Order: sequence, then C-alpha cells, then structure tokens
Amino acid sequence: MIQQGVFITFEGPEGAGKTTVIAQIFERLQATGRKVILTREPGGIRISEKIREIILDNDHQEMDAKTEALLYAAARRQHLVENVIPSLEAGYIVLCDRFIDSSLAYQGYARGLGIDEVLSINEFAIGETMPNTTIFFDVTPEKGLARITKNSTREQNRLDKESLKFHKKVYEGYQELIKRYPDRIVSTDASLSKEEVTENVWKEIEDRFIKSTHS
Amino acid sequence: MIQQGVFITFEGPEGAGKTTVIAQIFERLQATGRKVILTREPGGIRISEKIREIILDNDHQEMDAKTEALLYAAARRQHLVENVIPSLEAGYIVLCDRFIDSSLAYQGYARGLGIDEVLSINEFAIGETMPNTTIFFDVTPEKGLARITKNSTREQNRLDKESLKFHKKVYEGYQELIKRYPDRIVSTDASLSKEEVTENVWKEIEDRFIKSTHS
Repeated sequence: MIQQGVFITFEGPEGAGKTTVIAQIFERLQATGRKVILTREPGGIRISEKIREIILDNDHQEMDAKTEALLYAAARRQHLVENVIPSLEAGYIVLCDRFIDSSLAYQGYARGLGIDEVLSINEFAIGETMPNTTIFFDVTPEKGLARITKNSTREQNRLDKESLKFHKKVYEGYQELIKRYPDRIVSTDASLSKEEVTENVWKEIEDRFIKSTHS
Repeated sequence: MIQQGVFITFEGPEGAGKTTVIAQIFERLQATGRKVILTREPGGIRISEKIREIILDNDHQEMDAKTEALLYAAARRQHLVENVIPSLEAGYIVLCDRFIDSSLAYQGYARGLGIDEVLSINEFAIGETMPNTTIFFDVTPEKGLARITKNSTREQNRLDKESLKFHKKVYEGYQELIKRYPDRIVSTDASLSKEEVTENVWKEIEDRFIKSTHS
C-alpha cells in the first residue's frame, strides 16, 4: 500500500487540452478517497507570484532569456518548498499543470538556451523532488495551434506563422525529453476527444498509483 | 596594447573597507585616461532592482535559501547583460563591487548550499564573463565585525556572537575560493590603513592592466 505522496505533472504544447482533462483526473482521484491537490505554478505562493509578475510584465522587453529562466526556476523552488513538498510529505497526490519539462522544452530547446543548461539550474531548484510520472499530451503543432486560434476570426498573419515555427520547436523539445526520460514521461494521444484522453490518462494513473493500493 | 575591456571585481567580508578603496582606484584609473566604470549589483538596472526588492523585503521570511540564490543569479545576469558586457565590449575597465564570489562564499559556503551547487547556477548566469581579476580584501572576521560595530554604542548581544560565527564562515568560504582560483583571486591585507590598502591594490591593477599598455 502506498501511503506516501505521489507527484504527477502534466505537459504539452498549448492547445493540447490539458486543463479540462486534469480537472477530470483530479475529480476521479478524489472519488477514490485519496488526498489529492491540483496546482500550477506560481500557485498563489506570494513570493512566486511576485517573481512571475516580473517575468510577465510587458514593459520588461529587455529581459534576457537566461534571466527569465533563472526567475522561473526561483518561482518553481518557492512553490515546491511551500506547497509541493509539504503536500507530498502529508501523503497527498500532487497534480501539477506544467513543471520542469516546460522550462526544458520552451526555454532549453525552443528558445535555444540548451536543455542541459536549463536542466542544471532546475536540478538546483528541485533537488530530489522530480515527478514520479509526467503525462505528455501529444498533439501536433498544427492541430494545437488550430485549437488555440479556432475561436479567433482574424486571418492568419506573419506572427501566426512565426508562432507555428515556435510551436514546432516546442514539440521537438518535448520529443527530446521523451527520449531522455522514457520511464518518467508517458505520452498520450491528445488529438482524441477529451473524454477519450481523460480515459487514457486515467488508466495510466490508475495502473501506476491506484490499483496497487488495493492489491 | 590592450584595447579590450577588463573586468575587475572586489570581494571580502563586511567591514573590510572595500568601498573607500574602490572609489580611490576608480579615480586613479580615470586619471590614466582609461575608460572606466564602477558598478555594484543591481546597479540601477530596473529588472535587477525589482528582483533585489523581492530578496530584501523583510516580509519574505519564508524565502528558501535556494530561491534566494536563484534570484541573486537572475539579478546578476540582467546587470551583466545590460551593463557589464556592453561596457567590456566598448573597451571599458569595469570595476564591480561584489560579484560571483560573494554568492559562493555567503550562500554556497556560509549558508551551506554548497559552493559547487551555487557555482552551477552562476555559471549559467555568467557564461564566459568571469572576472579577469578579483581583489580579495583580507581582514579577520573579528576585526571586520569590530569595524562594523565600532560606531554602535550598544553592548554585544547574542546576535553579535551569532554574527561573528557567520562572519567566520564567510571568511572560510573566501579562503576556499582563493585555493580554488589562485590565478584569478589576489588577496590584499585589508587590516592596514586605507591609504596602504589603496596603494597595494593599485599596484596589483597597475601591474596587470595599466603598465602593459605602455610597454
């Protein structure tokens, strides 16, 4: 029987439909009677929120990519120390919408800082608290982008094409990470309906962390 | 002839008398006709200043030591990118009051995060821009602390004793760094008078970076 906490993170490009699915998974886990929390950096942690304000301030056009990566790592550390680690120690299943792999894919790979370089500062930030399992929502960059812009009425412009190029890099970055962490990262087909994706993700989590508690 | 910039940093425990000496060195360098700037993180760089505000906010008692180290590295990066690197590229001698070694001695060694660990995030932040030379102001922890509290009329209390213990750790940290970087770090006896210290520091800098330009 597992009484210790379990740390599960969810990753994927924008438009992969993570949010709805994670909310469903959260409810199903609660229904099993397990203690579970759902979070997402900066997660209401005031120091992390203040750091995020600096990152997202549109005025800060001069921000260097490495400065940004260090700030994300700092916000991650504080959220981890104040929320994730205490919850794991109290036996919770912690669901976190985006974590280290987002930094590795977006900043390390797509922005060109280097996966190993961004990994080094994140290893400092995270220490031993790597996720037990990470669910990757696999959707092609084209389909992901189409989902985001579906409700937009304007025509495709130069920025959208730039955006597709960047989305492709992010997707490639995630593919790199799947190769690098084959045991930790589980890929799920996110081009299916939300119901199907939820079912598939649920099976993964149930097999790994729920069924074993009843055996 | 050296036309490229030179990056010189100044380090030491509190009470080592750095500030006055550095100002003198700055003036002497200017008098040689060299382009020179004197800076100190966060150095008026607005993103770095905002980061420093988060670090120094007395309200943030919950801040984790690693969060703090990452924030210092982020502020350092932005100051480097906006001020130090452009100045070096423009051929300036850049004098910086405290830099990477302060993080290594205070956070890596004295606060116990580990010199190698704090080095890893600072290497990410700094890249190739390590100081050409670092002047270490060598003063015993006792003497340094005595100088700080000299003008204070209150009696020594428990915190002052704690403070001495911490000062000793910082001093030990710097000794470690001198062993690690024997070519980069030059130690100067800071127990001497300010005039003598200035003279000695000036000789070091003159020998390394000024005389050679006339030979």
